[in-house]
Amino acid sequence: MITSAANPRVKLVRKLESRRQRDKLALFACEGEDLVAAGLDAGLEPVEALVDAERPALVERLPGAELVSPEVMAGLSTLPHPARVVAVFRRADLPRDLSSPVGLALWRVSDPGNVGTLLRTADALGPAFVLLSGGCADPTGRKALRASAGAVFRVPIGGFFDEEGSARVALVPRDGVPLPELELPERVVFLLGAEREGLPDDVLAAANLAATIPQASSVESLNVAAAGAVALYEWRRRRTGP
Amino acid sequence: MITSAANPRVKLVRKLESRRQRDKLALFACEGEDLVAAGLDAGLEPVEALVDAERPALVERLPGAELVSPEVMAGLSTLPHPARVVAVFRRADLPRDLSSPVGLALWRVSDPGNVGTLLRTADALGPAFVLLSGGCADPTGRKALRASAGAVFRVPIGGFFDEEGSARVALVPRDGVPLPELELPERVVFLLGAEREGLPDDVLAAANLAATIPQASSVESLNVAAAGAVALYEWRRRRTGP
Repeated sequence: MITSAANPRVKLVRKLESRRQRDKLALFACEGEDLVAAGLDAGLEPVEALVDAERPALVERLPGAELVSPEVMAGLSTLPHPARVVAVFRRADLPRDLSSPVGLALWRVSDPGNVGTLLRTADALGPAFVLLSGGCADPTGRKALRASAGAVFRVPIGGFFDEEGSARVALVPRDGVPLPELELPERVVFLLGAEREGLPDDVLAAANLAATIPQASSVESLNVAAAGAVALYEWRRRRTGP
Repeated sequence: MITSAANPRVKLVRKLESRRQRDKLALFACEGEDLVAAGLDAGLEPVEALVDAERPALVERLPGAELVSPEVMAGLSTLPHPARVVAVFRRADLPRDLSSPVGLALWRVSDPGNVGTLLRTADALGPAFVLLSGGCADPTGRKALRASAGAVFRVPIGGFFDEEGSARVALVPRDGVPLPELELPERVVFLLGAEREGLPDDVLAAANLAATIPQASSVESLNVAAAGAVALYEWRRRRTGP
């Protein structure tokens, strides 16, 4: 049983709290049974797994897991109640297949809660892939993972310009085609802008169409995660009728 | 100029970080120009206003404002860059008129970001009122205010059972009428459940209808703020055609 915070496995998990380290090692850590189980359900094999010795969870699914003292576990966890299990996965094992007919492309969405929520929405209302520009929050960071509710293991992720076969529909706060009237292309990626700045001119210019979610007035604006949910709902509604 | 954190006005703002104090005093504090300006735009008069002496903001709109040293301001603010202005408003001055034909009723939505985002969505895609059950996050707490992006000053808020003239449509994860096929009543309140537990049986039993947002599979679920955005979008789409 690991009882020291200086144990290399414990130190690895702590290290992965930093985005720089996640980028460097191409690994990320998940805490909590739901999230770790979602990874296992998706067929990923953890590089490391740590289980609370006094409240073990998922041990039968984690043959290589190490037992850890509750004190060390409490030091690792950021949850209100410390997690019973923490596992480290490889980023390279996450899905990458961008062949779905629908996707979301996020431009500099820096809030990790929004990135995670959009992954969850892409999973539920697509299934859609998600493209991330530079400046987006890391989908494998702690807050994004939690907001994704495990969707990070099911939703294919690519770079902002990685997918080229789809029509690009920019969602703009005003003056676009009203979304309910938009002729939806066979394959479509909805472009969503940063919370304050929206989409920059060059990204807009490269889009095939611009659409607007009809609003009560043009003063208010939608949160980017709300806009993404509406776009995917509209896409799904048209595909499945009526 | 206020230079001491022991100043009673500064202490009042700090006190209002606690929900118990907000409930007791029926006041709340807003930080940042956008939020304070939204309050002023809605016609509210602040009880107190504190402005950074070195980077004053909104002073012409806040005749009773006190200048505060940057050090004291930094101690008050939770933003990455300290706010230039903080104002205290009365809860009783917030809108309460529940006559809109559409509303959202939130059951034990405890995450303040979700409550704030739903207010923002109600503002943009309604305008809708919002009903809050016990156990919901305080819409006048700091995180909810920020997520609302000022909508808290425009969206009427009531208790969960305060509105009686509308049909109640429970949004359920499965087995409800598909939302696109739902016959929308003239006046409607969409009921949204807590993140994990959903809507309890007695609340469901008291609803007139149950509707489901069509999903890719029944395993995944939508975040409550995403579900609320989809419901209001569908309502708006039907009202405005096509």
